[in-house]
Amino acid sequence: MEEKIQTLWEEVRELSLGVTPIDRLHAPPTPLQFLRDYISPNKPCIISNAIHHWPATTLWPSTSYLLHTLSSSAVSLHLTPIGRADSLTPHPTTPSSLCFASAHVQSTPFDEALMFIRNSNQHSKFVAYLQQQNDCFRSEYSSLAADCESDIHWASEAIGCLPEAVNLWIGNHLSETSFHKDHYENIYAVITGEKHFLLLPPTDVHRMYIRDYPAAHYIYSQDTGEFALELDDPVRYVPWCSVNPYPSPENKEKEVSKFPLFFEGPKPFEVTVNAGEILYLPSMWFHHVRQTPDGSGLTIALNYWYDMPFDIKYAYFNFLQSIHYSSPLHTPTLDGLKHEESCSYACTCNSMKELNAKTYPASEDATDGLNNSMS
Amino acid sequence: MEEKIQTLWEEVRELSLGVTPIDRLHAPPTPLQFLRDYISPNKPCIISNAIHHWPATTLWPSTSYLLHTLSSSAVSLHLTPIGRADSLTPHPTTPSSLCFASAHVQSTPFDEALMFIRNSNQHSKFVAYLQQQNDCFRSEYSSLAADCESDIHWASEAIGCLPEAVNLWIGNHLSETSFHKDHYENIYAVITGEKHFLLLPPTDVHRMYIRDYPAAHYIYSQDTGEFALELDDPVRYVPWCSVNPYPSPENKEKEVSKFPLFFEGPKPFEVTVNAGEILYLPSMWFHHVRQTPDGSGLTIALNYWYDMPFDIKYAYFNFLQSIHYSSPLHTPTLDGLKHEESCSYACTCNSMKELNAKTYPASEDATDGLNNSMS
Repeated sequence: MEEKIQTLWEEVRELSLGVTPIDRLHAPPTPLQFLRDYISPNKPCIISNAIHHWPATTLWPSTSYLLHTLSSSAVSLHLTPIGRADSLTPHPTTPSSLCFASAHVQSTPFDEALMFIRNSNQHSKFVAYLQQQNDCFRSEYSSLAADCESDIHWASEAIGCLPEAVNLWIGNHLSETSFHKDHYENIYAVITGEKHFLLLPPTDVHRMYIRDYPAAHYIYSQDTGEFALELDDPVRYVPWCSVNPYPSPENKEKEVSKFPLFFEGPKPFEVTVNAGEILYLPSMWFHHVRQTPDGSGLTIALNYWYDMPFDIKYAYFNFLQSIHYSSPLHTPTLDGLKHEESCSYACTCNSMKELNAKTYPASEDATDGLNNSMS
Repeated sequence: MEEKIQTLWEEVRELSLGVTPIDRLHAPPTPLQFLRDYISPNKPCIISNAIHHWPATTLWPSTSYLLHTLSSSAVSLHLTPIGRADSLTPHPTTPSSLCFASAHVQSTPFDEALMFIRNSNQHSKFVAYLQQQNDCFRSEYSSLAADCESDIHWASEAIGCLPEAVNLWIGNHLSETSFHKDHYENIYAVITGEKHFLLLPPTDVHRMYIRDYPAAHYIYSQDTGEFALELDDPVRYVPWCSVNPYPSPENKEKEVSKFPLFFEGPKPFEVTVNAGEILYLPSMWFHHVRQTPDGSGLTIALNYWYDMPFDIKYAYFNFLQSIHYSSPLHTPTLDGLKHEESCSYACTCNSMKELNAKTYPASEDATDGLNNSMS
């Protein structure tokens, strides 16, 4: 079975994706082209020159415009110790295991929030990130509405509906989003700065080592300037990708031996989305996101979530995910020797049930059981 | 694994296809609708009122028009003993096993061919069928070109190319095509009479019991009025569906016990395509075809084969097909008792190789290894 799954990884690349970099279109596609060449085959692409007519592309790189427009209106600011929200971190009571940690979220005046983001660095008490995947652009940031289009017309026409959510992201170089997938067609527009994506197709699901992790959340104390990490009460579990694609040098060997299917399999597609470009991030693709800020220290992006088709591709994905992949793991033991261990595992997070429970997720584009549904 | 595959059968029906009959559109869709709602999700539909503007719909039901236009021009006539070409029949030398039998094909003046078809019945020496899947409408039948459109414009625009082949079918009530699938998007227009399709999605591949059968061909002797069945030389094998969905009453129990996944699983979608209607038969769907003639004793249809996308869906299909399904079979034994027998089987007919070898197939819409490629 393992060989058959590996053949699938290869066939998807050979038949559909190609081994060359992701397609970069130099103008928006027609709805028909977009549907035929990208949505239907579930294939990402970058579209240049797609948003140059938006006022946002000239206005937003100037923080004075944003400060003037949003002023001290309240926005939801996410605080984490080192920039990784919605990611795995040592469990608060049993640090030898991991939990899924959500950011501390606090309502903050926009001008103050922006200052926090720009001041966030390795030495600051926290890393601040404006990100809220609850259609925030059309609520908290509605005063910016005229600066962008309310939908991406060629995508709306191709998909046959308007976006279900539009989300704004303002972060700096420390903000990072761990590997996950979304149950949405995602049109991701970068206004200023750059976003760096690692992408893997849904067929690579076993390479992500999705496991159920206990949910926890950071609590930041302004008095002490320190974070506490608390388990959610009642306890809930979030299925999440175990792989960190950029382990620290001292952890690298251990991570590679824990997740050989990721590190030793086909490389993720690496994509940098520049200011003024759009990434079409197809539904169910695994993605990891980092960013490079512009001269003012910020990366600003807007993403449009469209309903995905729950069709034969989705049924195939669920089938694939239900299959056990026996991965030989090299696990260090107390006596320093390495023993082969077979980890037979089937992902459990997707099912017909989640369709009924789908609501807005909480992580960067994440619907994987956050806040609501799948755990 | 068997349960997981069965869940896939159910999910495709629940998510994508629905349990109600196939969609019947009352006018041609726009290219975008057709692509979004049918091609991309790999979902069949019937389109009424799509060809009423073709001269063929009024001209062809009159055999005098066809006889006048084609006169005695040579056409490829297929002769079989009982109307089943490209289907399984007892092996000529070891009748306890089966072979894949192709029709006797002879170049015949059209007027004579039409007479043979109309005179074919249970008591005649052969059943005649005009069917040739080699783009015959644009070659043998080019004098009829003005009676139909050279392509289906909304399909061509959706798919992004012109048809690779256009094939004409003229048969009577005895002509039947056994279960198989094609590597084409198929637009099937019925001009006169009715076509009755049984349809199963590609996810049901294990229910078809595809096996490699030795290829054979009928040879009809005009002198004796009898058929001989000869194995192809050199020997070649054709992967073909083992299931006959309409077994004779005396064979029914045996067939049901041999192919429980078909007979005991979800029922095929039953579709009758009436004169003036088009069936969109998605690529890789298994289909079985029978027909009811019009008042003049003929069923006439035209089908347009368009290139299919070899994308993630195709890769998923190949993966599914590569998986063994251990089916418990109840096999009667000599002492009259039934023993459980495990038949572990993986289909072998599809691979990357067949993409390179794809040419026109020989059966009704069949690309499964015929004449060329996959065996």
